[in-house]
Parts: sequence; structure tokens; C-alpha cells
Amino acid sequence: MDIEKVNSMDFGEFVDVFGNVVERCPLIAAAVRSQRPFSDLEDLEQHFFAFTDALPQSGQEGVLRCHPDLAGRELQRGELSAESQREQSAAGLTSLGAAERLWLAELNAQYRARFGFPFVPAARLSDRAAVPREPARRLHCPPAQELSTALGEVKKIGRRRLADLLGSHAAEP
Amino acid sequence: MDIEKVNSMDFGEFVDVFGNVVERCPLIAAAVRSQRPFSDLEDLEQHFFAFTDALPQSGQEGVLRCHPDLAGRELQRGELSAESQREQSAAGLTSLGAAERLWLAELNAQYRARFGFPFVPAARLSDRAAVPREPARRLHCPPAQELSTALGEVKKIGRRRLADLLGSHAAEP
Repeated sequence: MDIEKVNSMDFGEFVDVFGNVVERCPLIAAAVRSQRPFSDLEDLEQHFFAFTDALPQSGQEGVLRCHPDLAGRELQRGELSAESQREQSAAGLTSLGAAERLWLAELNAQYRARFGFPFVPAARLSDRAAVPREPARRLHCPPAQELSTALGEVKKIGRRRLADLLGSHAAEP
Repeated sequence: MDIEKVNSMDFGEFVDVFGNVVERCPLIAAAVRSQRPFSDLEDLEQHFFAFTDALPQSGQEGVLRCHPDLAGRELQRGELSAESQREQSAAGLTSLGAAERLWLAELNAQYRARFGFPFVPAARLSDRAAVPREPARRLHCPPAQELSTALGEVKKIGRRRLADLLGSHAAEP
């Protein structure tokens, strides 16, 4: 899909296609649509990031709260978005043993209680061992720093999802 | 459900319950959760409205773009949210004749082309005759005025949905 195609979409199609670039936040895609035409993938991406950065703190916490837990109840119930399902599968989270799942659930619960939003990991964790290590480490960060770290992860995820949609490899990490 | 129950919800439950107070915008409910505790229904409602009012124009247009067309493709495909399905049914939109449906589709298309977002009607139109009359009238409003009118309708819908959830009749029009 090239950028001319993106610029030619009506808003319904645009929201259908880009509505989950930020997990369960079609509002953000729908708002970004106001900024068209876009010059390229990077320009489109910057509008997603700028909108998220300009939200008040409650809105940024809200973005994070729209994310599922890692290997949590949405995964158990088959209620993950298609994108999250792919990402959690690629990270090996769909095939955890019972002990690992319990440990991760306990870490998630501690993280949620401390920060008021779920742990959002780097997009497509490829290092399976990092999955429990990362939330354990970030649990000890100051809340303001952790909010900023978590939003950085949301951006990495969004960048990969956009690159997938536009069939570009420009955004590889 | 009383306000103590609302204040005691964890954020996952809060977003599950209130995520569609503003149609397809769980981000707004998730952001409002940052403002708890709430003193009563009206206080909760005011936080939804304040967040929406504080969005930049692109965000307000985004909120509107998350709404379905009246008697549009989402209804045809059975993809409406449960709340929208009830509201469109109550307004008689699920039992339109072919000619009415075509007329409404044409009005919707003109409205979308002029304003860049779908026509959002007053919550639960009870006067069936108003359904095609309203978009026809609002088509001729200046864009800034229409954005404001449409957001007012979003608030009326949100007020009714909140009152339904809290089992209150305080918010009757």
C-alpha cells in the first residue's frame, strides 16, 4: 500500500485500516485522518505520535489502559486484537507453562497496582527470557519515568504495525 | 450500580463497563478513570465531557468518525456496537423500506463529504420522521457550528448510556 492509496481513503476505510495502530484506540487514527494528505510513512507515523504526546496525562494513561495484559485474561479468553494476538504469539506468550504464566500474572498484578496501567512491552519481544525480566525491572521505576517508557513502547508497537500495513521495512528497529 | 461500586472497579473492569459511553472510544473511559473517585453520576459524566471538550479539533473530529452511519453499512453487516444497535432499532432504523434507506444513504454521503465525519443524531430519536429531516437540515450548517452540534449529540448519547449503566433516571432529557 503506498501513501497515495492512504491519502485517497475515505475516513471509514482509514479508521478500519489504521484503527489499531494504537491498540484499541481508533479515536487516535480517526483524529490523525484530519491531518491528511501525508507525504510518506514517516509523516503519517509522526502524526500518530504527536497526537499521543499532546494528550493530557490522563489521556496517556488511558492509551496504556487500552492495552491487554501480557499472557492475561484477554489471551485466555481469545479476546485479543489480531495484532496483539500475533505479537504475543511471536513472543512465545501463547505457549507458556503454568508456572511461568502464574509468575507473569503476579508481576502484571504488581505492575498494575503500582502504576494504574498494564505493562506494555517492547513490540515483538524476540528474546523470550526478557518477558518476565522486563516487568520485574520496570516495577521499580519512578511513575513519571515509567509512563514515559511505556508510551515509548506504544510508539515502537505503532511503528511496526504501520510498517506492516504499508508493507515497508523502513521502520525496522 | 452505585457510585461506590464504580469507584471500587479496577481499571480493566472500568474500561469494560464504560468503554462505549462514547462510541468506540474506550480511550476516553480509560482516561476518565484517572479522575476517580467520583462523587456521583453527574461528576462522572462531567469528566467524560471535559475530556472530550479538551481534545484538539482533530480529536473531536476523531470522536465523531468513530460513530457508525445511521442505517449504514455497520448495521447491514451486523457490526454495530450493542448500544448503537439498540439505539438505531429504537429509532426504527432497522426496519426502513428500501426507498427510505437509499434516501438516508444519500443524505449520509452528502453529510460525510461536507463535514468529514458521519451524521450523529440525538440519542434515541423517538420521532421517526425526524430521522431524514435532521441530517437534511444540518447539512446546511457552517462546519464549525456543525462540529459543535454533533459533539453536543455525542454528549446526549453518553449521558443516556451512563444513566442506563448506573440505573438512574436522573438524566432523562
